[in-house]
Amino acid sequence: MFAARADFDEFLSRLPKPDAAAREDARARQARLTKPPGSLGALEDIAAFLAAWQGAPIRADRIQVVLFAGNHGVTKQGVSPYPPEVTVQMVANFERGGAAINAIANTFGLQLSVHPLSLDRPTGDISVEDALTEEETLAALNAGAQAIDGAADLVVVGEMGIGNTTVASALCAAALGGNGLDWAGAGTGLDPAGVQHKAKIIDCALARAGSSRAAFDILKRLGGRELGAMAGAVCAARDKRIPVVVDGFVACAALAPLFTQQPQILDHCLSGHRSAERGHGRLLERFDLRPLLDLGMRLGEGSGAALATAIVRAAVATHTKMATFEDAGVSDRPA
Amino acid sequence: MFAARADFDEFLSRLPKPDAAAREDARARQARLTKPPGSLGALEDIAAFLAAWQGAPIRADRIQVVLFAGNHGVTKQGVSPYPPEVTVQMVANFERGGAAINAIANTFGLQLSVHPLSLDRPTGDISVEDALTEEETLAALNAGAQAIDGAADLVVVGEMGIGNTTVASALCAAALGGNGLDWAGAGTGLDPAGVQHKAKIIDCALARAGSSRAAFDILKRLGGRELGAMAGAVCAARDKRIPVVVDGFVACAALAPLFTQQPQILDHCLSGHRSAERGHGRLLERFDLRPLLDLGMRLGEGSGAALATAIVRAAVATHTKMATFEDAGVSDRPA
Repeated sequence: MFAARADFDEFLSRLPKPDAAAREDARARQARLTKPPGSLGALEDIAAFLAAWQGAPIRADRIQVVLFAGNHGVTKQGVSPYPPEVTVQMVANFERGGAAINAIANTFGLQLSVHPLSLDRPTGDISVEDALTEEETLAALNAGAQAIDGAADLVVVGEMGIGNTTVASALCAAALGGNGLDWAGAGTGLDPAGVQHKAKIIDCALARAGSSRAAFDILKRLGGRELGAMAGAVCAARDKRIPVVVDGFVACAALAPLFTQQPQILDHCLSGHRSAERGHGRLLERFDLRPLLDLGMRLGEGSGAALATAIVRAAVATHTKMATFEDAGVSDRPA
Repeated sequence: MFAARADFDEFLSRLPKPDAAAREDARARQARLTKPPGSLGALEDIAAFLAAWQGAPIRADRIQVVLFAGNHGVTKQGVSPYPPEVTVQMVANFERGGAAINAIANTFGLQLSVHPLSLDRPTGDISVEDALTEEETLAALNAGAQAIDGAADLVVVGEMGIGNTTVASALCAAALGGNGLDWAGAGTGLDPAGVQHKAKIIDCALARAGSSRAAFDILKRLGGRELGAMAGAVCAARDKRIPVVVDGFVACAALAPLFTQQPQILDHCLSGHRSAERGHGRLLERFDLRPLLDLGMRLGEGSGAALATAIVRAAVATHTKMATFEDAGVSDRPA
């Protein structure tokens, strides 16, 4: 999708726009359905959102979960309680169907694809060097873009990578301001001293990486491959007008550099859930996204967003299958 | 289920209890699954809750939605913007498959049964007379109890009845304290003056009904048939150890009199969602129930709880289908 960095910047400058007329048509239909006005709450908002990207009829039959995995040189700084070997072990677990995302995807009939990204070549340790070269950054963006199935009605973007909440926190701080302590959380289970240490490592990385707020620079200097791939996947989905359900802290953090360069990049995105990871609530506020679920999940793997697709399906079903007052012979309120 | 009022009181005094050992076994299993401890948040709590009532393995394949409809004499006091004829019209809409609950039940493969309760005989106008006779109260409780399928893994309890948020508010005030204004909300769409009027009607009903906090008295004096039926359905589910997902304000209000008489009646219940109807947040706080969803819905019909069954299914799937660290060859954290 992106032959050079300039293609990426150019794409962000000319994003496809939502179809306001289709959204209004959806709102008009909702007023005729057999329910009090507005009584389906967020389901009505979701249906109107889908109409703006899909036109009519809206649909959520074919849902694709793209799951990217990467390894991170910064793990040598002791930022995770789990060893980095767990990334490749968990990819094998995904491929055998034993992880949480497998259970959720199977329950809801979602199409899961797993994309391990050069797991034998961890990114640079961001506390002392750039994460990726320019070519590697482009490759990560393109790996994400190529993972998108153009026939999907809806895409879920998720990740796995020991150490990647450190990288995600660094991306947030570089793109949106703040320091390590503002964005660092417990990840897979650090104690308070561990979070303090993680924040210091993030501050080292921020000092080293410089102050460019260009999305490509931030991804190259601080990003991981799976974060670059999620950014690329969200761009490709936008290009194809496929709505995206974004997962938790790391998945959202991958979009922070894009958002800083072009705030409209989130217009085709729903937030699947509010993660219990500390920085996520703050990030959703900056994005002005209201999460569909708030269940204290903090697993990654796209698990929260995959679960939220059930809400999106209910929004589609009520919007497209309910009878109108006229069809059903139900009295609307007296004028 | 209840041949006389005494049977109901006796049932509430000897409720089946959760199985603490089965719950602990579920928690022990969760610690071995391939995820950081606690990272599935509420899904882990739901799985442990199900184990306490179902034993092992937990399951949510067969989900029954029982939907009760009733008519209310208090509608003659102008407490709803919709005419009472809408109740029977909506029952026909349910039976033809055109309502929101049909769309949601079909999407998730839920078994929907609709139970119209003497719609041609509205309850007494509670502002001036008792809602039901003793025999009618028993009949409503039993109609609810008989609706429960003993083979169900999970039950959703919902309702339809023009005017029933007025009745629900009165039940809450009678069972839990407070006056009309503390509990009244916009229902299907009252303006602020309409809510004030509704609150006054509720206060009339409360003054008339007297101060008994016995569940049966409150249901008889202030309840509607569909509220009594929901109370009976929740009792029958408890008797069969079937967990219940409770819907919004009216469905929860039906349980308020039971809760006042016997707080353990909610131990087998999950709250499906937080309704946008004004009194619901307060009621959930009194019940100490955390809703699974908070999507601004306020439709009734069991719609929010039916949607929440998707969360319960994900909890079952992750709990029963995920690999353990040992099985998957994934490194647990260093000791």
